[in-house]
Amino acid sequence: MVTDPPSSPESSLGPGARTTLRRQRDRGIHDASVVYAILDAAPICHVGFTAAPDGSEAYPVVLPMVHARLGDRLYLHGAPANAMLGVLATGTPVCVTATIVDGLVLARSMFHHSMNFRCVTVFGTAEIVDDADEIRAASGALVDHVVPGRAAITRPPTASEIRRTRFVAVPIVEASAKIRTGGPNDEPEDLDLEVWAGHVPVSSVAGAPVPDAGVAVSYPR
Amino acid sequence: MVTDPPSSPESSLGPGARTTLRRQRDRGIHDASVVYAILDAAPICHVGFTAAPDGSEAYPVVLPMVHARLGDRLYLHGAPANAMLGVLATGTPVCVTATIVDGLVLARSMFHHSMNFRCVTVFGTAEIVDDADEIRAASGALVDHVVPGRAAITRPPTASEIRRTRFVAVPIVEASAKIRTGGPNDEPEDLDLEVWAGHVPVSSVAGAPVPDAGVAVSYPR
Repeated sequence: MVTDPPSSPESSLGPGARTTLRRQRDRGIHDASVVYAILDAAPICHVGFTAAPDGSEAYPVVLPMVHARLGDRLYLHGAPANAMLGVLATGTPVCVTATIVDGLVLARSMFHHSMNFRCVTVFGTAEIVDDADEIRAASGALVDHVVPGRAAITRPPTASEIRRTRFVAVPIVEASAKIRTGGPNDEPEDLDLEVWAGHVPVSSVAGAPVPDAGVAVSYPR
Repeated sequence: MVTDPPSSPESSLGPGARTTLRRQRDRGIHDASVVYAILDAAPICHVGFTAAPDGSEAYPVVLPMVHARLGDRLYLHGAPANAMLGVLATGTPVCVTATIVDGLVLARSMFHHSMNFRCVTVFGTAEIVDDADEIRAASGALVDHVVPGRAAITRPPTASEIRRTRFVAVPIVEASAKIRTGGPNDEPEDLDLEVWAGHVPVSSVAGAPVPDAGVAVSYPR
């Protein structure tokens, strides 16, 4: 089931027990519009779960994945043999974190160095997606997440490819965003040190496309 | 205790029970030199642990952090009140994953879209760092991780700042790297589709530095 995003920018995804900041509360944001915008802008996410193998101690696992959001659902996908998706499909609790580094914050003191960033953390449980329409929509969303518009021009998955892919959806119910912007917060007594201080924006930039052998059309078509 | 990196490129960090790939074994790399190079190149990492609050179900938590490596130890730091570091300091299992996206892999079919990336996953437990020399070395490494050479020109932490920072180290004992490069692996029957296919390198690029008020020296000094 794919639902539309909440229309109100005040739609709140918390705070819940897991997303109440104990510190720096001003950086904690639960507006769905903010959470969704960061999820949409982050190229990848990191997915965490607790592995509990038979007979040994449980341990956390964090792996990178491409994600896509449609409405209030976050989609992940991979091969049916993918161990993480297999665990997620059992309904184990999952944490999905997407982070965009926006800049380096260089202070006069080591202590006040920092990063500018946008980050979203989603807590929930995953559901197996087995509805054909939702799988098709998620397939397109995952491709469009990487290069917007690409789903319209590439061959959609065959029935066999869909059987060879596991899709799960994490309903975005409890989530929080954290954002840092601006320069350093140096100590007053450090302001006269002869050290450059400020912030350096960083962004992800595409280089020259490398065509596959035999490609006759121009990028990005 | 800071130790030198193993001198042999064949130094192996596994596979152990947690880092034996079940699929795509060719992508699993345990050479310390490869693992270290990716950790050093990734600006941030994602740290995962299992939160087990009194009286409620345990759940995974994944948060972004700046890291630095010295020898076979991975350093993390934050305020003493930082909830995650507080849990890590108890010796709970931790997973640290650092990922660099190197490119977009655009295929003729949705199914074969992918990403080029370098990723390291470290499994272990954290130790509190309370040795003054190691704290000083870790402080410098964390600053130099963000901008190499910066530790030499910025004011080192005072005793008070060190008291207001918690440092933990994760010994890099069990780790694996995964790397994907190159173009898409399209199906033979798709090669004639009129869709651009190939890969697009992406990289993180610094923009124009924004100096803090009153800075008289030139970037990056």
